[in-house]
Amino acid sequence: MCLSVLSSSSMMRSMRRGFFCSSAALRWEGGVSMVQGASRGIGLEFVRQLLEKNDKGHVIATCRNPDGATGLLDLKKKFMERLNLLQLDVTKESTIEAAATSVRESYGSLNLLINASGILSIPDVLQPETTLTKVEKSSLLLAYEVNAIGPILVIKHMWPLLKVGGGSGTERKHSVVASLSARVGSIGDNGLGGWHSYRASKTALNQLTKTISVEFARKKDPIVCILLHPGTVDTDLSRPFQRNVPKGKLFTKEFSVQNLLSIIDNAKSSDNGKFFAWDGQEIPW
Amino acid sequence: MCLSVLSSSSMMRSMRRGFFCSSAALRWEGGVSMVQGASRGIGLEFVRQLLEKNDKGHVIATCRNPDGATGLLDLKKKFMERLNLLQLDVTKESTIEAAATSVRESYGSLNLLINASGILSIPDVLQPETTLTKVEKSSLLLAYEVNAIGPILVIKHMWPLLKVGGGSGTERKHSVVASLSARVGSIGDNGLGGWHSYRASKTALNQLTKTISVEFARKKDPIVCILLHPGTVDTDLSRPFQRNVPKGKLFTKEFSVQNLLSIIDNAKSSDNGKFFAWDGQEIPW
Repeated sequence: MCLSVLSSSSMMRSMRRGFFCSSAALRWEGGVSMVQGASRGIGLEFVRQLLEKNDKGHVIATCRNPDGATGLLDLKKKFMERLNLLQLDVTKESTIEAAATSVRESYGSLNLLINASGILSIPDVLQPETTLTKVEKSSLLLAYEVNAIGPILVIKHMWPLLKVGGGSGTERKHSVVASLSARVGSIGDNGLGGWHSYRASKTALNQLTKTISVEFARKKDPIVCILLHPGTVDTDLSRPFQRNVPKGKLFTKEFSVQNLLSIIDNAKSSDNGKFFAWDGQEIPW
Repeated sequence: MCLSVLSSSSMMRSMRRGFFCSSAALRWEGGVSMVQGASRGIGLEFVRQLLEKNDKGHVIATCRNPDGATGLLDLKKKFMERLNLLQLDVTKESTIEAAATSVRESYGSLNLLINASGILSIPDVLQPETTLTKVEKSSLLLAYEVNAIGPILVIKHMWPLLKVGGGSGTERKHSVVASLSARVGSIGDNGLGGWHSYRASKTALNQLTKTISVEFARKKDPIVCILLHPGTVDTDLSRPFQRNVPKGKLFTKEFSVQNLLSIIDNAKSSDNGKFFAWDGQEIPW
């Protein structure tokens, strides 16, 4: 079974890296994790902690331009054998397919997929709306394409690998798909208004993830899909909007990711399709 | 105040039609309603019932091609003076702006806006997805553009008219914006999965409407925004998917619209930003 999904060259690479094949499933000691949107911010911190906290785990870090991702290149020097950088742009499905092919050839399975990419503002292109009169079709479409459609297409193409992976090689019982959502994507929690494009894109991501989780459960796939709110984290994404964050509520990347990884590692089958804040509290839709 | 928003030619038209100006606000006896997406199905039925149930109310019916809208043209023969057909395509913002300009010149205000347009399937273009592997970016974008962005842009451009209108000339205390959502847009109620593009677009419409309702309330605008689930109604939209509808759960257009109009007419300020089924029950997000 395991031979059929690995090319001979990738088999060679696999043997060098500590791959072994049980009768039950493909198995990488320490597991294989993919962090999508890993060049900076929370994604980069996920890569760092995954590599540092598990001295056997393999990590695939994807971003639009790996050659310019200095944070990842620094990590690569330290974790040469266990870190794999791949090009992936969520707005170009062909790059997602190519990444899936590469992962299939190199590892044959995935145990964890973290969707960390996302946009909130881009100078002169996308600005969180303060009023309905500033809502533009182009902004709504762009946020939807990057924040909702992108992660879903990544799950679509990684699904076969996550199914093969399950919990094998890890301490989890199943593979996990964790997508970064945001509390402002909650409709029930929306008391302030504004940020139309960003809010709607994250709400749609929540619905799409819930929809996918229902199918995974029905097919008894060994995959748990969850949505995560990281809190307001001190990153490039939040920097222009940190002014009104209450004291003590602006988290470091280290703190937030530490909490989110704990949620991921403890995710149960009954958590499939749920939306959790960094502290483990469930967020209403 | 009222003179400033009407051109002289539209003033002439207004005087012929029974417009009168109070010191408080622009006032059309019976009110001015717009039904967006009125060529057939639920939208057309809204137009019919609004005209038949209130023998003074004015109705603006919009659709992509009024010249080919036989149902509306039939109604126009009967309600010549009180029915106004306008071209509007929710995917072309310029047509929404033009419709708003036309309404401003002819009436100066709006008391009710019903967003009834929507797509679920188009042969060879859009098909409700039965599995994640069938999810395509093009379908997600198309459903989002028509079902979520379109209605929001209509509200954006009609907002000044709804603000002027409020409840004047009607038995309501405020103007009402009612957008057709769907129970499958509820994340909390999603037990079946599938229909990714349609679900996500309606969920996003819910979030965008909630976001707008918060701003209207904060600005004390005399507008109540609600979302409506019409039930499964025997229309062209639902026809390909009626097979599994339980007996007694496939409603006629007449029945559904009668119920929805009752919700609209009884909408209170405290209903602003809420999501109701045809029977008045609130639907979870």
